[in-house]
Amino acid sequence: MRTDNRTAGQLRPVQITTGCLMTAEGSALIKVGNTHVLCAATIEDTVPPFLRNTGKGWVTAEYSMLPRATAKRTPREVTKGRPSGRTHEIQRLIGRSMRSAVDMSSFGERTLIIDCDVIQADGGTRTASITGAFVAMALAFRQLIEYRALKANPIRDYVAATSVGLVGGIPMLDLCYEEDSQADVDMNVVMTGGGKFVEVQATAEHSAFDDAQMAELTELARTGIAQLVRMQKEIIEG
Amino acid sequence: MRTDNRTAGQLRPVQITTGCLMTAEGSALIKVGNTHVLCAATIEDTVPPFLRNTGKGWVTAEYSMLPRATAKRTPREVTKGRPSGRTHEIQRLIGRSMRSAVDMSSFGERTLIIDCDVIQADGGTRTASITGAFVAMALAFRQLIEYRALKANPIRDYVAATSVGLVGGIPMLDLCYEEDSQADVDMNVVMTGGGKFVEVQATAEHSAFDDAQMAELTELARTGIAQLVRMQKEIIEG
Amino acid sequence: MRTDNRTAGQLRPVQITTGCLMTAEGSALIKVGNTHVLCAATIEDTVPPFLRNTGKGWVTAEYSMLPRATAKRTPREVTKGRPSGRTHEIQRLIGRSMRSAVDMSSFGERTLIIDCDVIQADGGTRTASITGAFVAMALAFRQLIEYRALKANPIRDYVAATSVGLVGGIPMLDLCYEEDSQADVDMNVVMTGGGKFVEVQATAEHSAFDDAQMAELTELARTGIAQLVRMQKEIIEG
Amino acid sequence: MRTDNRTAGQLRPVQITTGCLMTAEGSALIKVGNTHVLCAATIEDTVPPFLRNTGKGWVTAEYSMLPRATAKRTPREVTKGRPSGRTHEIQRLIGRSMRSAVDMSSFGERTLIIDCDVIQADGGTRTASITGAFVAMALAFRQLIEYRALKANPIRDYVAATSVGLVGGIPMLDLCYEEDSQADVDMNVVMTGGGKFVEVQATAEHSAFDDAQMAELTELARTGIAQLVRMQKEIIEG
Amino acid sequence: MRTDNRTAGQLRPVQITTGCLMTAEGSALIKVGNTHVLCAATIEDTVPPFLRNTGKGWVTAEYSMLPRATAKRTPREVTKGRPSGRTHEIQRLIGRSMRSAVDMSSFGERTLIIDCDVIQADGGTRTASITGAFVAMALAFRQLIEYRALKANPIRDYVAATSVGLVGGIPMLDLCYEEDSQADVDMNVVMTGGGKFVEVQATAEHSAFDDAQMAELTELARTGIAQLVRMQKEIIEG
Amino acid sequence: MRTDNRTAGQLRPVQITTGCLMTAEGSALIKVGNTHVLCAATIEDTVPPFLRNTGKGWVTAEYSMLPRATAKRTPREVTKGRPSGRTHEIQRLIGRSMRSAVDMSSFGERTLIIDCDVIQADGGTRTASITGAFVAMALAFRQLIEYRALKANPIRDYVAATSVGLVGGIPMLDLCYEEDSQADVDMNVVMTGGGKFVEVQATAEHSAFDDAQMAELTELARTGIAQLVRMQKEIIEG
Repeated sequence: MRTDNRTAGQLRPVQITTGCLMTAEGSALIKVGNTHVLCAATIEDTVPPFLRNTGKGWVTAEYSMLPRATAKRTPREVTKGRPSGRTHEIQRLIGRSMRSAVDMSSFGERTLIIDCDVIQADGGTRTASITGAFVAMALAFRQLIEYRALKANPIRDYVAATSVGLVGGIPMLDLCYEEDSQADVDMNVVMTGGGKFVEVQATAEHSAFDDAQMAELTELARTGIAQLVRMQKEIIEG
Repeated sequence: MRTDNRTAGQLRPVQITTGCLMTAEGSALIKVGNTHVLCAATIEDTVPPFLRNTGKGWVTAEYSMLPRATAKRTPREVTKGRPSGRTHEIQRLIGRSMRSAVDMSSFGERTLIIDCDVIQADGGTRTASITGAFVAMALAFRQLIEYRALKANPIRDYVAATSVGLVGGIPMLDLCYEEDSQADVDMNVVMTGGGKFVEVQATAEHSAFDDAQMAELTELARTGIAQLVRMQKEIIEG
Repeated sequence: MRTDNRTAGQLRPVQITTGCLMTAEGSALIKVGNTHVLCAATIEDTVPPFLRNTGKGWVTAEYSMLPRATAKRTPREVTKGRPSGRTHEIQRLIGRSMRSAVDMSSFGERTLIIDCDVIQADGGTRTASITGAFVAMALAFRQLIEYRALKANPIRDYVAATSVGLVGGIPMLDLCYEEDSQADVDMNVVMTGGGKFVEVQATAEHSAFDDAQMAELTELARTGIAQLVRMQKEIIEG
Repeated sequence: MRTDNRTAGQLRPVQITTGCLMTAEGSALIKVGNTHVLCAATIEDTVPPFLRNTGKGWVTAEYSMLPRATAKRTPREVTKGRPSGRTHEIQRLIGRSMRSAVDMSSFGERTLIIDCDVIQADGGTRTASITGAFVAMALAFRQLIEYRALKANPIRDYVAATSVGLVGGIPMLDLCYEEDSQADVDMNVVMTGGGKFVEVQATAEHSAFDDAQMAELTELARTGIAQLVRMQKEIIEG
Repeated sequence: MRTDNRTAGQLRPVQITTGCLMTAEGSALIKVGNTHVLCAATIEDTVPPFLRNTGKGWVTAEYSMLPRATAKRTPREVTKGRPSGRTHEIQRLIGRSMRSAVDMSSFGERTLIIDCDVIQADGGTRTASITGAFVAMALAFRQLIEYRALKANPIRDYVAATSVGLVGGIPMLDLCYEEDSQADVDMNVVMTGGGKFVEVQATAEHSAFDDAQMAELTELARTGIAQLVRMQKEIIEG
Repeated sequence: MRTDNRTAGQLRPVQITTGCLMTAEGSALIKVGNTHVLCAATIEDTVPPFLRNTGKGWVTAEYSMLPRATAKRTPREVTKGRPSGRTHEIQRLIGRSMRSAVDMSSFGERTLIIDCDVIQADGGTRTASITGAFVAMALAFRQLIEYRALKANPIRDYVAATSVGLVGGIPMLDLCYEEDSQADVDMNVVMTGGGKFVEVQATAEHSAFDDAQMAELTELARTGIAQLVRMQKEIIEG
């Protein structure tokens, strides 16, 4: 039995609230247990230099944690003058995941920026960010279509994410912070609506793992992500 | 009549929700109209170098806006590697205001840090931060007392703040962003529970002002702040 | 009696020397007691991005202290890689004060930058900077007129500043460093030639203050600023 | 057939030269085709703050590319004042991989730093760095044993890495830069001497992938890594 | 004939004013023609880490130009967040020159910092800084002796500096900015009171130079430095 | 006798290998004893702002040491966010030395950047960098001529460098690290193929020096540089 009485294959309670920011093109506050992330999508009419005059757009993400999202206060990154390695790694992952779901040549020379700001952190902030960011992005593109700035939807597939891990030898879905810090293997999985892999990042924290464990963990992730995609669909297609 | 149908002397609707962060020593989400600020108080068992071995504590504040708090996205300050002048100015103001309400020699060599993170901005973010920060601070000290780490309450007085200004020649209370950008004179006032001045920052944006206008504006601020202090009292002493 | 034998309502000896920099468009070395600030005005033929193609100009200021302006050496800000919050706050104040005196649409797409470098500091460096900066600015505009690059003078009014404060319960004009560090209330006032307010920044360092004290302090500031404006007039119109 | 005439399951020619730095505790220049990385291991008698007085050691890595390692010159990161997100991500990966192979409680409160500097880059710099870094680390620990500063070898297992990917639908081993930039799926795999996973990082660059493709790619990586570990063994135990 | 009517072997008018900063341990404002540098010596009771517990002291220097020291305004270095290469080079030169004149083991574990701030620049700012810095340093040590904090004078020899150059093929002493920018060879020479070399930095800006030209230039520097040392002696030994 | 059995006037063994980087326009690995520097020349089709539309080109250099080039590991400069003063000084010296050998108006609006990365350091890294950088630069210009992008060779003269010093009172050529750290006088000399001075940087580390010592040291440098230029000629003109 897990600390919060879940079964090994059970997600934490998930809640996604949209429209929480008055002026953002798309926004979603996602709560996965005690992990709360505010995702805001902005559309700007410029692209990075390497895309100028190509007719293509760009999707990128930024990630940050409020100082008191964590049990022990984390100093702001601006104090050190630079984002940490962890922040860089996470925002690159969110950006790649979003781009995998979008046809870059279908929304003109625009940049969609997704800001993922963690209000409260209890493990799985990067995967919650991806699941929420997708909703914010989808709403932003829908607004562009409603405003007749776009004809077709640039989104090609759903994308959602969760974490899985081996804790005390048992494969578990959607680790909270305490479980994550005890895990032998920690894996973040990003998948499409159809259950194909977009990203797999698996790390042996304490002991290496084999093909069978790998397969078991990815299967567990697939069941969780399927539920998250169903929630995304209800919200977006409603 | 104002854009949101308020009278000149009327505050925007104010809502203060406490306990919104699971692990912070004190927290308050303050909404003043469409301006939303999350205030989190942290108590750390160290003090800045200039206070070591003095037996005194310290209170300080940090302020930041989420990128999409504003109608046009504002790039994160970490991108430039340093807080802007505006951020410095605001967090110094919040810190001074909080310190004015606290007996620094009564809570040991501890630092209370208040993080004010603007989730949504529609004018008056610095004054909303002060009003909310006071609540978060008071709750943090109360927790210290409940945990028997402190005997007496270090807070000596209430502190709250609002903005006033001359808009189209008319003195108005609690300016929203649109009013603020049209104001001839813009004033931020921080007061004690008894209506005495803690800070006055008045700026003639377009035309200089005289003693009579100054008096009229500070009086207007006093009525608004009295209401805010009543709300703080209900929450804290409740 | 004050440390330097002044009465409560007396300014320190003030001396303003112009033309101290060979190549600057305008320059003034202002000495207010032992506070010495070198103010240099530069006119550049560009404007910040937000003013391009508007036909309007801009006035801005930078402020810095030489390391040994203070009794204890202050490390250079470049060592930390960023200006301090105090520096930001002061240079924003000087800039706003200068802009309040100038018609921005009357000198073309030019930027006037005023550098205020504190050679020696004994309290009141920001207000001395404002009083001196105004002289340097006026001389720079006069040079532009003499060189026939401008027809009319963009300056609409005089601007000068001083500090006042409650020290030991007594309202005092033009605080030196020692008085400033003991003050209960510290107020910086910027006024026009006609005695109207441009900026008021009042801070209760130790105890909050009421309307009567506020009025007494601003009146004291008005008498001091009137003398400073007379000195500016003699130098500029002389 | 691949650009350099390799078969799909063939590694590029690999060459590891040790002792190339006169004073480093361990060093290895690894050449994987045209990718050349100089790995230097340093042992310092301190640990990061979180390990002080625990009796445990630490292993960490830094990664950098010389500006002209790439076909188009890459500006030095010091010019921007901060390592890029990519650099952070890579050096964190190398560090984790090395730590997975070492018993942290067996070499005292020391830090082993491995510097991986890419002299020339043609794809697979992070995996070549891992394979080379392991050799440099093993030599450094061996020196510590030879100098009688350690009794037992802290290394518990071999660790090596390679990349695999789907290029034109075909699973290929050890991608060069050109192949990597055309790959649909790109995967970096770090394994132990016994063929268990330490890290898997798989990214769908253009199209998502399924379990079968995942399994095929990891199997291909396993055959490549087995060869790399054989080379490491010959050098270290040889 | 030179622009300012000097002969080729003539220094510009030199003026050194001491005691210009109320609280500095030593201070000197040196004017060499239109080049004006304020030199302030500070003594602190700490040493850099590499000297702790050695009983030795340290002498170091910092150099900066006020923005409007130059005909065209130079942006402050703090704006870019780091001193320029030129600044680094100059302050290292001043520091080495000062250290060459001082017995480091004779004034305890103290650091003497000399701040050289260029108020106005017309060529030769680094050599004027050295000549002025020596005076400020000597006065600071004298104060230490007067206060009985030191018994013997740590200064072993005089040090002064000037520039020489080949301008239009003619060797010239003490170049002003205009001459410096036209020079074929530019040389900064630092010498002891006895005319021995402390530093020689010679640069062929346009055409390489031979032994004879080298000898001619250093001889010219020697005559100029002898005059500067005489001035230093009068001021210090007075 | 010197530590490595050289005579006082003998260079360390010098070896220059070209073409060591697959894609650089020119490259040379220079080994001077145990000092190893990799020099890479890059040609870019832009010039710095001050040369735009002048038809002239630019030559610049960057210098860095790998962390474990030194016996004790040196932290990377990117960690502090800025190059050290020493790095600035050295790269400015290399750049000036290269520019002295090139006709800037003869290769169009291009920039030649020479990266000097020290793989291993045992004294004399800046002079080895200059000697090696010249070879890399010459090869890059030759490639431009071979590709018919240039008609004539922009190089006007050879440039090479070495260090000399007074060690234990004896003038010595080409100091290794140990000698350098004991030297009373340390001098870096850059000369043309014809033995004229391009740069002389002489520093009295412990005791000032006179004309005779200066002449003796420069003569020693001349003999060493003549040998280095002969090696450069063999490589370049082959």
